[in-house]
Amino acid sequence: MIRANTDRVLRDLYHLRSIGTYRTGVHRPTLSAEDMQTRHWLAEQLQAIGHETTIDGIANVYGRALGDGPVVLSGSHIESQNHAGWLDGALGVIYALEAARAVAEAGIPGGVDVIAFADEEGHFTEASFLGSESFVGDVTEEMMDRSVCRSGRGRLRDLLAQAGLAGRPRLAIEPDRYKAFFEAHIEQGQTLESEGLQIGVVTSIVAIWQYRITFEGAQNHAGTTKMAIRRDAGKALMQLWQRIEEEFPKIVGPDSVWTVGRVTLDPGGPSIIPGGAEMIFQFRDADQQVLDRLKARLFALVEEAGRGPCACTIEIMGESKPAIMYEAPQAALIEAAKTYAPGKYLVMPSGAGHDAQVIAPLVPSAMMFVPSIGGISHHWTENTSDEDIALGAEVFVDAIGRVLSAD
Amino acid sequence: MIRANTDRVLRDLYHLRSIGTYRTGVHRPTLSAEDMQTRHWLAEQLQAIGHETTIDGIANVYGRALGDGPVVLSGSHIESQNHAGWLDGALGVIYALEAARAVAEAGIPGGVDVIAFADEEGHFTEASFLGSESFVGDVTEEMMDRSVCRSGRGRLRDLLAQAGLAGRPRLAIEPDRYKAFFEAHIEQGQTLESEGLQIGVVTSIVAIWQYRITFEGAQNHAGTTKMAIRRDAGKALMQLWQRIEEEFPKIVGPDSVWTVGRVTLDPGGPSIIPGGAEMIFQFRDADQQVLDRLKARLFALVEEAGRGPCACTIEIMGESKPAIMYEAPQAALIEAAKTYAPGKYLVMPSGAGHDAQVIAPLVPSAMMFVPSIGGISHHWTENTSDEDIALGAEVFVDAIGRVLSAD
Repeated sequence: MIRANTDRVLRDLYHLRSIGTYRTGVHRPTLSAEDMQTRHWLAEQLQAIGHETTIDGIANVYGRALGDGPVVLSGSHIESQNHAGWLDGALGVIYALEAARAVAEAGIPGGVDVIAFADEEGHFTEASFLGSESFVGDVTEEMMDRSVCRSGRGRLRDLLAQAGLAGRPRLAIEPDRYKAFFEAHIEQGQTLESEGLQIGVVTSIVAIWQYRITFEGAQNHAGTTKMAIRRDAGKALMQLWQRIEEEFPKIVGPDSVWTVGRVTLDPGGPSIIPGGAEMIFQFRDADQQVLDRLKARLFALVEEAGRGPCACTIEIMGESKPAIMYEAPQAALIEAAKTYAPGKYLVMPSGAGHDAQVIAPLVPSAMMFVPSIGGISHHWTENTSDEDIALGAEVFVDAIGRVLSAD
Repeated sequence: MIRANTDRVLRDLYHLRSIGTYRTGVHRPTLSAEDMQTRHWLAEQLQAIGHETTIDGIANVYGRALGDGPVVLSGSHIESQNHAGWLDGALGVIYALEAARAVAEAGIPGGVDVIAFADEEGHFTEASFLGSESFVGDVTEEMMDRSVCRSGRGRLRDLLAQAGLAGRPRLAIEPDRYKAFFEAHIEQGQTLESEGLQIGVVTSIVAIWQYRITFEGAQNHAGTTKMAIRRDAGKALMQLWQRIEEEFPKIVGPDSVWTVGRVTLDPGGPSIIPGGAEMIFQFRDADQQVLDRLKARLFALVEEAGRGPCACTIEIMGESKPAIMYEAPQAALIEAAKTYAPGKYLVMPSGAGHDAQVIAPLVPSAMMFVPSIGGISHHWTENTSDEDIALGAEVFVDAIGRVLSAD
């Protein structure tokens, strides 16, 4: 049995919050000076507990526990979204650091390898989760060459060079080394808060299936073109959207979500009937059967829409795989939650993507959530109470201790 | 009885097409060098037939018939939309010039004052029809001071100065001088063509009622926010749009048109539930009762939408008045059409706005259309057959002759 030192956890999180502070949150985009400052700080903390520590060629920070015995891998990302919250990513890194310290101090066999992935927040192109995808071997040198910052800070290669990381090798996962991978994260939703709960044990990370749907009609004068002969691409888009909202509720799973986040009418003049229209549509679920069912219905609705006056085409932008969390480490989280937060935990899916979904196919993975106040994330007002942060650390560290000491 | 010289009409239109030629159309925005070239050319033609000719302080070209007898005012605009058609505006100016020439040559009493308005196409801010609104006294000096080019060519005042018009007085209409105002224009729609007709006699110019409808919901993560608690401003917009398309067909008039030309979701990220959404919605009709009925229904639907999870507000962007064409000049056009195009004319409303709607409250006004090939306008492929252009000139000039010779 190992225990978290929750004062130390809060102290370290406050320290990270002091680097790149933006209002009550932080601004630490991947490979910014502030981001690199946190990575070097983390490396020092890991060295201080005797871990062999590296910042690799894509800015992943890795602290390797020396000595014999079972090993658990734990971590999250340390950079932030632009002008965003202080805990998104940092929480999971500090929990992992605390688990490594607690194990080292307890003198029990085995250890916790700690990793702070680079760019889970997607500041750079070519990959959704650049650091963890590099770690599992999914990022080629050519992808690195092409990758640029989405906010215009330049090429990945140039920013790596500025950070002093040019030419460093990139670390590769050793799947057989680990009994499990654990990641903690803020929930980024309101489920825990609205039910008065403190811990979420994640069953699965949803897949995101995203599509660009395009309509082609006839651009025309909005005054002189009679309704009967119009081929209004905007109206056709609206009608498909309406059909989706009509049909999806009949066939979704209990946790499915679907969203039209962007709509463009072309040319967009008030007195011009749109000749073109485009929508970005996505849905998320952790159940492959539900995903397949939704996709089939979506494509049928697109075909139905195309029988109207406008042509309708659909392009797949992404169809990620759902990641099912592994039973043994998940059970350890539940046992730990029963100890520290009896009646205050929930077994739940994750609606957001996380590095754990990249690691899950190679190492038995589990995730734990703490509540997000008001469900807010990706904004500087994101927050979690100190009490919930402390409780989360207790449960997380205890669960890792259980896995290390299990047969 | 006077007659148009249709060869001269075509020759003059081809000449205008040679100034600012763009592909098969023209690019002559208001106050561009090419626009000013056509205005000076027109002034010379009017001087040549003995008209007292002025280019005024807003670039309206005015040719005043000297001598005694009844006077008809006729004209249209001479500038083009950007990279647009050769006949939109120019046709009505050359028909008016031809009517003035025919009357002058026939030696009958009276005459035709010719006007080429500035900026009917709305290149400049502060007014929809800058030239004709100035002519009727609706444009103040302060509006002139504020007016800028919508395509970024600068301030109206500066461009007037470059054109050599700074400080010139602006002409004012003398309503009692004219028996009627006549404007010819391309139809900009497909009604005449699709029915195999050659002349449209306009009964009324529709009003355009335009609204900005705004939705306020809650911006949130598209993965972690459950469907039941979402306040999706985009979805609320779609649902109002759908309700409009459901309800409007039940209460519109036979010639009503309605259009959603622009939609914006805020912030527009694929993985973000829109917290805000905006649509520009307009409808057009010539019947005040229909307009009132549509507005009442629209506002009721907006109120209905606001009872959902998102706030919904509506802002009036414009509610112009429909312009009813005057019976006597309209009857002259019909008589002329019966003579030159028996069975080939249609009495019809205009779905587009025209300078005639600005003049109509002060002078008995009438408009005549010729067919647009494929209904195309505001594009360089806009066209009308030479045969239809010639026939239109015959009908138009004959109608003006009838009004001048009527008791």
